[in-house]
Amino acid sequence: MNGAESLVRTLIASEVEVCFANPGTSEMHFVAALDKIEGMRCVLGLFEGVVTGAADGYFRMTGKPASTLLHLGPGLANGLANLHNAKKARSAIVNIVGEHAGYHIKHDAPLTADIEGIARPMSHWVKTSQSARDVAADGAAAVEAARAAPGQIATLILPADTAWNEGAQAVTARAPEPRPAVAGDAVRAAAAALRQPDAALMMGGIGVRDPAMTLAGRIAARTGCRIISENASGRIERGAGRVIAQRVPYVVDLALRTLGALRQIVLVGAKAPVGFFAYPGKPSTLAPPECTFTLLAGVDDDIVGALEALADELGARTTPPAHVAPLAPPAMPAGKVTLEGIAAVLGALLPENAIVVDESVSSGRGFASLTAHAPPHDWLCVTGGSIGFGLPAATGAALGAPGRKVICLEGDGSAMYTLQSLWTMAREQLDVTMVIFANRSYQILHGEFAAVGAGAPGRRATDMLTLDRPHLDWLPLARGHGVEAGQASTLDEFAAQLRRGLATTGPYLIELVF
Amino acid sequence: MNGAESLVRTLIASEVEVCFANPGTSEMHFVAALDKIEGMRCVLGLFEGVVTGAADGYFRMTGKPASTLLHLGPGLANGLANLHNAKKARSAIVNIVGEHAGYHIKHDAPLTADIEGIARPMSHWVKTSQSARDVAADGAAAVEAARAAPGQIATLILPADTAWNEGAQAVTARAPEPRPAVAGDAVRAAAAALRQPDAALMMGGIGVRDPAMTLAGRIAARTGCRIISENASGRIERGAGRVIAQRVPYVVDLALRTLGALRQIVLVGAKAPVGFFAYPGKPSTLAPPECTFTLLAGVDDDIVGALEALADELGARTTPPAHVAPLAPPAMPAGKVTLEGIAAVLGALLPENAIVVDESVSSGRGFASLTAHAPPHDWLCVTGGSIGFGLPAATGAALGAPGRKVICLEGDGSAMYTLQSLWTMAREQLDVTMVIFANRSYQILHGEFAAVGAGAPGRRATDMLTLDRPHLDWLPLARGHGVEAGQASTLDEFAAQLRRGLATTGPYLIELVF
Repeated sequence: MNGAESLVRTLIASEVEVCFANPGTSEMHFVAALDKIEGMRCVLGLFEGVVTGAADGYFRMTGKPASTLLHLGPGLANGLANLHNAKKARSAIVNIVGEHAGYHIKHDAPLTADIEGIARPMSHWVKTSQSARDVAADGAAAVEAARAAPGQIATLILPADTAWNEGAQAVTARAPEPRPAVAGDAVRAAAAALRQPDAALMMGGIGVRDPAMTLAGRIAARTGCRIISENASGRIERGAGRVIAQRVPYVVDLALRTLGALRQIVLVGAKAPVGFFAYPGKPSTLAPPECTFTLLAGVDDDIVGALEALADELGARTTPPAHVAPLAPPAMPAGKVTLEGIAAVLGALLPENAIVVDESVSSGRGFASLTAHAPPHDWLCVTGGSIGFGLPAATGAALGAPGRKVICLEGDGSAMYTLQSLWTMAREQLDVTMVIFANRSYQILHGEFAAVGAGAPGRRATDMLTLDRPHLDWLPLARGHGVEAGQASTLDEFAAQLRRGLATTGPYLIELVF
Repeated sequence: MNGAESLVRTLIASEVEVCFANPGTSEMHFVAALDKIEGMRCVLGLFEGVVTGAADGYFRMTGKPASTLLHLGPGLANGLANLHNAKKARSAIVNIVGEHAGYHIKHDAPLTADIEGIARPMSHWVKTSQSARDVAADGAAAVEAARAAPGQIATLILPADTAWNEGAQAVTARAPEPRPAVAGDAVRAAAAALRQPDAALMMGGIGVRDPAMTLAGRIAARTGCRIISENASGRIERGAGRVIAQRVPYVVDLALRTLGALRQIVLVGAKAPVGFFAYPGKPSTLAPPECTFTLLAGVDDDIVGALEALADELGARTTPPAHVAPLAPPAMPAGKVTLEGIAAVLGALLPENAIVVDESVSSGRGFASLTAHAPPHDWLCVTGGSIGFGLPAATGAALGAPGRKVICLEGDGSAMYTLQSLWTMAREQLDVTMVIFANRSYQILHGEFAAVGAGAPGRRATDMLTLDRPHLDWLPLARGHGVEAGQASTLDEFAAQLRRGLATTGPYLIELVF
């Protein structure tokens, strides 16, 4: 058994069952091992941003790390932007990055690069295997690092000779350590804070999903506190019958208004709210200066246990939860496309158990309220602000949750970063309906240009913010990747297209022109 | 004048006249400054790999650095793979990377990342501006670093507040230091080596262009030495009337045969030949063990001066050069598509002064001999092995050399990494004819799988090496980006399509199916 085979057996024994791959020469022994050994689903992406973003989406839906297979420094580099999003989402991923044979590195061949240096900014754990006999143990250590709560990016660099030389026996990664329990003092301090007026629970990490959200709802019912959540979370469970948190808005002025009345914020897997960007003359922190923060649980702590203890402390363990959304989808709108109308169509048609992957950027800022009363669904956000997340994450989410409808909401500018995802969706026949918001500009930047005090864009600046001359034509782009597509330019057409996409088994792309 | 304006004025004063950009919020003041100040051509790319690859292609044709404009850590990360190629080509690029306002960084907003850490593996020079008053001087230092011979990657990180606060006056970068002259000892040693039998000059850097190649030809005529060059060079001048070097082949066995008779290699801006990858049981170094290397000039030395001195030493300064290619384009072939036939069509139709950007990967290994006797042209290679180079480099080359025909030879797998380039070509109406070798696989990897001793690929491995199910449909892919396209599946059709592409002013894509 060579090193590559020992690694594949180790990954499979450690329940890493999917490999998103874009291999090259230095990874051929790993590919050959995938061939020989049963138990790993291999999914090819035609660009590494697809590969890493898919691994992120897969983890968000399964709670299990996938492996990626990347070709030396440049292959890893192409995957970094979506690793950044995954890292900020606290997703677990095991990257396998090929490297030259150890003895070849000193010759500085064209692909030689500082792979550890490239990996480090986006990885919690980085290691280069030193010999084929180490590879199995290194692989198990990578899985253990990835699975450390709440989830980490582990990058194992595999020199070609450690893949092809004789390896050791496969190793099974140890089960992750349980999340550390929160101290009683923290629970009592949180309870005291919530007994004050103008208090909120601020949820993050797995705190935005059940059972944490139901506990938060019980506590809110008992204390009258509000429930807010970070602007972006890896995976929010929401919709009818679920406790709904109010996400901190992206726009600073709106966030300041939303949070302005608060005097107590209890952090549950969340960080204190900060602006996505800094703007001249505006604060970085979004809560009022007189607000007191109390940490109940960090993102890696036992969030559910802490909320149970807090509910007990407040006598709320069986209190019926507040902030539960009733089933009340919006009425179906018609006519001209507006952002509110798009949100209403989504809210009216979201199927039960849908997975919404949201990279709608500027178009989607109003989607939350009109979809909150749709049947229960999951909502996956861009957590690191690195665009090109949506299509790959939808790819991975669909792979990780077969039988569920995935709806990917994409800005046209964002979609272009990782459009190659469409081909993987077509190849794997993934049940993803994509909505491309074809406003033919980096619409968000028109607002940001003014928000940073740069005035009104002139000709050259406007050129940098718009996607016209030529406009992108999404129907042929989709078909070129093997994906069926349709266009909508009214809300009626959008509803018809969305129904059609949801009725399709396999990928379907809707170009929504407005 | 704010910091951003002081930087733009500094860049323009320092003859950095093009900015390839994919900006975001943190770069809006730089964009606004580009608006206000005349003298910088702004070119939008819809993905950062397009931006950095275009800057590389632009430098290769102009010898002048362009600037890039990238959005924080993830934007830079997306550009790294083509910066890797540019670094290995010794191209000069000035990256401007936005960053959060200095006071905002500690809040760990979603886009916060270790930007210097991301930059370092692919940059020779990295600096973060500390205040708006420093930005102009930092910008000039970045240009100076980029222009240091033979060319460097300089990355200047610009926190948003250093862009919007009041800056200093613009600064003009100092002219680059002249390349260091080579010592007389090195010249005499090289002359002694070339007087031995079985000797070769091995050319790299600007050594593969005139006036260096003509000097090499004179020396070869006088001594009988061979002229070889690195497997990949940034820009080779070749074709009829020029001295032709034999490139070291990619395939190890072929390289060993090509170099096997050599006993003396004089390095002129080149490194000793090494395998692109290591393979079990094959050597990393490609020259025979009994071969002696003599360094005439490093890649950053005064290569032309060294060759002049060497020619003087050998009495070859006016010797008519050897290895000059006669004008003898191949006869136009017809019928079924073969790799040799493709090469012959290219050789027959290459127009004078064409720029060939070559990312043909496996399909193009035989192109050199059948194009060597076409009219004089430039040939740009993938220098770092990071695929996704061709289309962006063609974009930048066309921008840097208006009036010349650019032909981009692209593998279908490679093209998919940075396909967004097509949109920039359409927007800027760049005169690029692209040939996509649609063999519907990572053809090179089929060979590599066997070459590393992994045997014959099975079902899962084959799936990782092929681009079928579905096949990519290049005509709609091109049209979706606003680029005209046609298909060829015989050599006659290929010739007709190539003629049509070359007659088109603006981008044209040919899908060559075989």
